[in-house]
Amino acid sequence: MRQPIENKVITPALDPTPRLLMGPGPIDVYPRVSRAMAMPMLGQFDPEFTGFMNETMELYRQVFRTRNQWTFLIDGTARAGIEACLGSLIAHGDKVLVPMFGRFGHLLAEIAFRAGGHVISIEAEWGTVFTTDQIAEAVRHHRPRVLALVHGDTSTTMMQPFEGLAEVCRETDTLFYSDATASIAGNPFDTDTLGLDAVSTGLQKCMSGPPGTSPITLSDRAAAVIDNRRHIEGGIKPEGAVDATGPRITSNYLDLAMIMDYWSPKRLNHHTEATSMLYAAHECARVVLEEGLDTGQARHRLTSRALRGGLEAMGLKLFGDAENRMANVTGVVIPDVCGDGEALRAAMLNDFGIEIGTSFGPLAGKIWRIGTMGYVCRKANVLRCLASLDASLRRSGYEAPANAGIDAAYDVYDEAGA
Amino acid sequence: MRQPIENKVITPALDPTPRLLMGPGPIDVYPRVSRAMAMPMLGQFDPEFTGFMNETMELYRQVFRTRNQWTFLIDGTARAGIEACLGSLIAHGDKVLVPMFGRFGHLLAEIAFRAGGHVISIEAEWGTVFTTDQIAEAVRHHRPRVLALVHGDTSTTMMQPFEGLAEVCRETDTLFYSDATASIAGNPFDTDTLGLDAVSTGLQKCMSGPPGTSPITLSDRAAAVIDNRRHIEGGIKPEGAVDATGPRITSNYLDLAMIMDYWSPKRLNHHTEATSMLYAAHECARVVLEEGLDTGQARHRLTSRALRGGLEAMGLKLFGDAENRMANVTGVVIPDVCGDGEALRAAMLNDFGIEIGTSFGPLAGKIWRIGTMGYVCRKANVLRCLASLDASLRRSGYEAPANAGIDAAYDVYDEAGA
Repeated sequence: MRQPIENKVITPALDPTPRLLMGPGPIDVYPRVSRAMAMPMLGQFDPEFTGFMNETMELYRQVFRTRNQWTFLIDGTARAGIEACLGSLIAHGDKVLVPMFGRFGHLLAEIAFRAGGHVISIEAEWGTVFTTDQIAEAVRHHRPRVLALVHGDTSTTMMQPFEGLAEVCRETDTLFYSDATASIAGNPFDTDTLGLDAVSTGLQKCMSGPPGTSPITLSDRAAAVIDNRRHIEGGIKPEGAVDATGPRITSNYLDLAMIMDYWSPKRLNHHTEATSMLYAAHECARVVLEEGLDTGQARHRLTSRALRGGLEAMGLKLFGDAENRMANVTGVVIPDVCGDGEALRAAMLNDFGIEIGTSFGPLAGKIWRIGTMGYVCRKANVLRCLASLDASLRRSGYEAPANAGIDAAYDVYDEAGA
Repeated sequence: MRQPIENKVITPALDPTPRLLMGPGPIDVYPRVSRAMAMPMLGQFDPEFTGFMNETMELYRQVFRTRNQWTFLIDGTARAGIEACLGSLIAHGDKVLVPMFGRFGHLLAEIAFRAGGHVISIEAEWGTVFTTDQIAEAVRHHRPRVLALVHGDTSTTMMQPFEGLAEVCRETDTLFYSDATASIAGNPFDTDTLGLDAVSTGLQKCMSGPPGTSPITLSDRAAAVIDNRRHIEGGIKPEGAVDATGPRITSNYLDLAMIMDYWSPKRLNHHTEATSMLYAAHECARVVLEEGLDTGQARHRLTSRALRGGLEAMGLKLFGDAENRMANVTGVVIPDVCGDGEALRAAMLNDFGIEIGTSFGPLAGKIWRIGTMGYVCRKANVLRCLASLDASLRRSGYEAPANAGIDAAYDVYDEAGA
């Protein structure tokens, strides 16, 4: 079939420059995951493929640490998972409480508002989180239908404590939803112990996968709310099927009731499952579970400690409340001499092949964000990043004590015997 | 890092049985596309990656045969692209005309309804299409805001003629939207000549890619409607940015105004682009354009002719209006002796490794659907399918004239000198 190509302007094949992705995500994909994506396709109702769907449900129950039956994938990026959960739980006029401590809290509020929610937001200064008492008090006061809370917000690198909130939500008959995209697998997250009703995530952080599919989990309580809104679309409605009496979910693509019918033994046709992304999700979970969730989280903590030790030894100031940092992303205050920090970011990218991030809104140009997530979270990358940063800072006019960053990181590893 | 795994129940790696996917899609992925998906990741705002986004826009302008600036990807399966288009074009109470000639017409009606549209549907018997006069008359009568029309409906294997409809839509100030997921690349489809305002597609049919991203294109007229509904989400709104006065789009994830800002030089953060799926889309377009759209369509026509010649020589009856069949999927009436046809489909799958489809609704258990799409659309697969079908039919009690199918297919190829 191959023939010389004549008289055609052909766009060259993709040939991305190798980067080390140490920003807030996406990050480098674990090679085993890339290989899994290249596996041969199966038809969406091939019993072998629906078997893989069931396996994926079981794998993510382990990742989420839940017994929830309804643990499956939404075919879109993490934001699709958020909208599927909020759009399917919130009906027009429902009160939704959104405590915001960063950019992604604003996103939850926006999505809840578009879903018809009556959104009540409370704000914490960026770089801090709420006390659980503050949130509990707001839940008791407003008695919202849904509490929508980011777990780890990469925009500020902060992680919100959740302990005790589920109990308050039970008192007020509030559904407790969280976006755990940024935190899952790299930080302790135990869906059932925390008493969550709905959680959405993505693959592109500590799961070491590409963005494009969103694992979610729903408690029986959340599933009951969704069941009460089941309206099967015309053209595939089984004879005799009766719609539920609750308000129809606005989206079709992100209608959890129909997606659950597709992921259940009913196998009612909805979208065509994104085969390669399911293969990726399956392998991401295998990678994470083979290492073990606790071991992986310990690796993220150690790596961050080494990175942070190095950064502080270089005289840099870490951003945000030290008690509530995620273990997979570190905020660094940009030194005055670096201005908005973009020239240094460009040097890191173009000269050293390392991507680090800046942030959004009030933190744009104020902090850099350095991710140590999933496959990227390892000693060699910490040392490479510190050495590159040291050189880039020096050439920007910021003089760190010679070798201090690397030595401090080594000290952390030596002390840990790693 | 590799260590023996002890005391853990490990789900085995995916190991899909090799299949030849000759159903209505998804189909086997072109190996070059699988390789592209495994390329190293880039950050979403890396200038190299935004360059790839721009290249992808240009490649799909060629695939769609359009000059539309707004030609880009929706991160979800084909259904996400449909909902992004309809949800962004239709405001509450807008009249939407949906001529339905199969299951996917029902889907458009459902999505238009959920988007708040006042849906007017007309129906053609499954296996037929509308005359363009019938549709033109309905447009003139109802003067809808949007005409939503499937191009090729895999459920019936029919393809709707579009010629002249754009002119009528201009008369009535109607936006002309089409779902061309099933037809694009395998059948003639010239967005600008047909005068379409919005088209959505997928990769998993004649584009030889996996499901999971949806290339779409929008005319300037459609883009103006969407611009008038731009409401930038809280948390990322640039200082001084003013929202448009039109009604807010209900979905955030599928809000084309915000997605266009992400795909424009503004690069306003929305979702994290599904990197590997963009790589796939880029390579799919390169594969299709290297062969040439006309050459590829001729290949689909020839292959279908050979398959259909073989099937008819075996005494089988083809389904639907012969004048308006798609060139990439063939409906075959299931012979009585095969009942609902499921036992034969299982034999084809399990014994011969070939997937063929049945259909939905009134055609479930009445027809098989055999796809010859993209990478799968080639002589070796037609002959393998006919030989396997011949054997499977014989063992089901249906006796075709010996060797008739294969010989008829060879005749078609011989006559074409192929």
